[in-house]
Amino acid sequence: MRVSELGEFGLIELLANIVNKTKNPQNTSWQQLTIGIGDDAAAWQCDSSIQLATTDSLIQDTHFNLNITGWEELGWKAIAVNLSDIAAMGGTPRYALVSLALPGELETDCVSSLYQGMVQIANQFGIAIAGGNIASASKVTITITVLGSLEDKSALTRSAAIPGNQIAVTGYLGLSAAGLQMLKQKLNFDAETSRLLRQAHLQPIPRIKEGQILLHQGVRAAIDISDGLIADLTHICKASRVSARIKESLVPVHPVAQANFKTDCQQLALTGGEDYELLFTASSRVIAQVKQALTCPVTVIGEIIEGLPGHVNLIDTAGKSIPWQQAGWEHFKSEA
Amino acid sequence: MRVSELGEFGLIELLANIVNKTKNPQNTSWQQLTIGIGDDAAAWQCDSSIQLATTDSLIQDTHFNLNITGWEELGWKAIAVNLSDIAAMGGTPRYALVSLALPGELETDCVSSLYQGMVQIANQFGIAIAGGNIASASKVTITITVLGSLEDKSALTRSAAIPGNQIAVTGYLGLSAAGLQMLKQKLNFDAETSRLLRQAHLQPIPRIKEGQILLHQGVRAAIDISDGLIADLTHICKASRVSARIKESLVPVHPVAQANFKTDCQQLALTGGEDYELLFTASSRVIAQVKQALTCPVTVIGEIIEGLPGHVNLIDTAGKSIPWQQAGWEHFKSEA
Repeated sequence: MRVSELGEFGLIELLANIVNKTKNPQNTSWQQLTIGIGDDAAAWQCDSSIQLATTDSLIQDTHFNLNITGWEELGWKAIAVNLSDIAAMGGTPRYALVSLALPGELETDCVSSLYQGMVQIANQFGIAIAGGNIASASKVTITITVLGSLEDKSALTRSAAIPGNQIAVTGYLGLSAAGLQMLKQKLNFDAETSRLLRQAHLQPIPRIKEGQILLHQGVRAAIDISDGLIADLTHICKASRVSARIKESLVPVHPVAQANFKTDCQQLALTGGEDYELLFTASSRVIAQVKQALTCPVTVIGEIIEGLPGHVNLIDTAGKSIPWQQAGWEHFKSEA
Repeated sequence: MRVSELGEFGLIELLANIVNKTKNPQNTSWQQLTIGIGDDAAAWQCDSSIQLATTDSLIQDTHFNLNITGWEELGWKAIAVNLSDIAAMGGTPRYALVSLALPGELETDCVSSLYQGMVQIANQFGIAIAGGNIASASKVTITITVLGSLEDKSALTRSAAIPGNQIAVTGYLGLSAAGLQMLKQKLNFDAETSRLLRQAHLQPIPRIKEGQILLHQGVRAAIDISDGLIADLTHICKASRVSARIKESLVPVHPVAQANFKTDCQQLALTGGEDYELLFTASSRVIAQVKQALTCPVTVIGEIIEGLPGHVNLIDTAGKSIPWQQAGWEHFKSEA
């Protein structure tokens, strides 16, 4: 079978099985590992604290196109997507390692700009770029690993959702995918709208403080929205072995996406991805506390129910299930 | 200027400058970082121990060719080269994150074999594969990050060599480059020689225990030989702002390389690279202790002297300097 037939998530499952079947559980590293393959970040016990580690790549012509993305923006985004994974665990990012694959004919000014973008976000979030690696390749690949720590005794995980939990999301959705559409199709908007759309797609702000507050307020299940609302809710439901029911009318579509992408905006918010908002589940009491504690919008969009693990039921205003075709970003399967 | 004109090491210097000039030294992460960009691994203080992190990529058609490399071997090597960086700090490897970029048309059996190779070496060295990332790309790139810890209060570094130190190396050199030559040129040897050559190039054994013993015995300066003996000694000399003088006749060329690559073997040992032996400097007293403590061969090949930072002087049996053209592997500059 080919990788494209099995798909990204099938392949992850296959590889996790190989690792878990062959591991030596007596080994100290395995004993101290509290979260392994399958969540936003790995977590292990280290002295008195929990260490977090996550890695993510941006690959030319898969994740970005140099015709529409600036080098500084690319540097920012490469770090941001990793910080978002730390945010989804409720952690504090500390260090980044940068692994670059670059064509020899690239101008060094481009690489300098890439690093300027990385340094900007690193300074904003108090992380140190501690090392990395550079190698030659025909296309640009940027792989970042971010190491973090956790002040609480346990992390936010994908596997902690329980029936009866409300499902909530920070901020608004769909603006990043709308931004991508603008950039790809060269759509024209006024300067401020263009700036917002571009920034949403290329310079997302990871919800670090919000993740920490969620954890502090008693939330246990969370993920960051990178693949898309429905895809990421499916990840939570699979990992937690539960179903979910969400109301389409409750999904907080970004007002700028709503105003400028009237026909598409609902689809962009449901499946567009890369908003890097936090999707989480908790009791109504905890969610009420979270709403008090956070300064960003928090919207309840549905509830966790018992049922087929991984099933997400999208309900329209008449109470009917809405079928959807494409559940979000998946490598290999969703390739053009 | 293009990346290929500046070269790998020039580019690293440029990027390290950007990071160091723009960092906020008040930031806790920076304050706790004890070794940043430019050594084999990064190191920072975490509670009572020192944490180590290193990352390295294997890129199709840059580092490996799928016509001559098996998938299991590739998995082994991708982890091994990172473990070797932890060995060069004197640390204990603990966790690995695996970031894969794969073409969709690849058979999943290949990816399974790749993971089998990774799991084999991970189990042998007691590390847990804790997570990673998978994305689609036109060529295979494997980026591994290994996290480790250090039991001593300080690490082996590239910057601790001082004039008067002897320069020594573990094991024998040149076999990995000889193996690559055999694979590329389809040379024929007897079965045992072929096996040794192939293994040296594709399944190197990182010197983890040896690195820890070096540190324990009082060695302070070390690097692993990945770029080549002269290139890696140059890295030590640059970082330590010293020169080195080594005698060609003392370089421990691997007997199998010597027997089968008579005309090339000296060059392979000096500049071939990827032997993943440890190159270190220390007083003659410490080196004598190291020889007692290690079971592998330890050979003194020269000494650290005052002089032009980064200068390595290679001496022939008549006491004359030998000029060399290519000092070892460097990305971009040494590309075919």
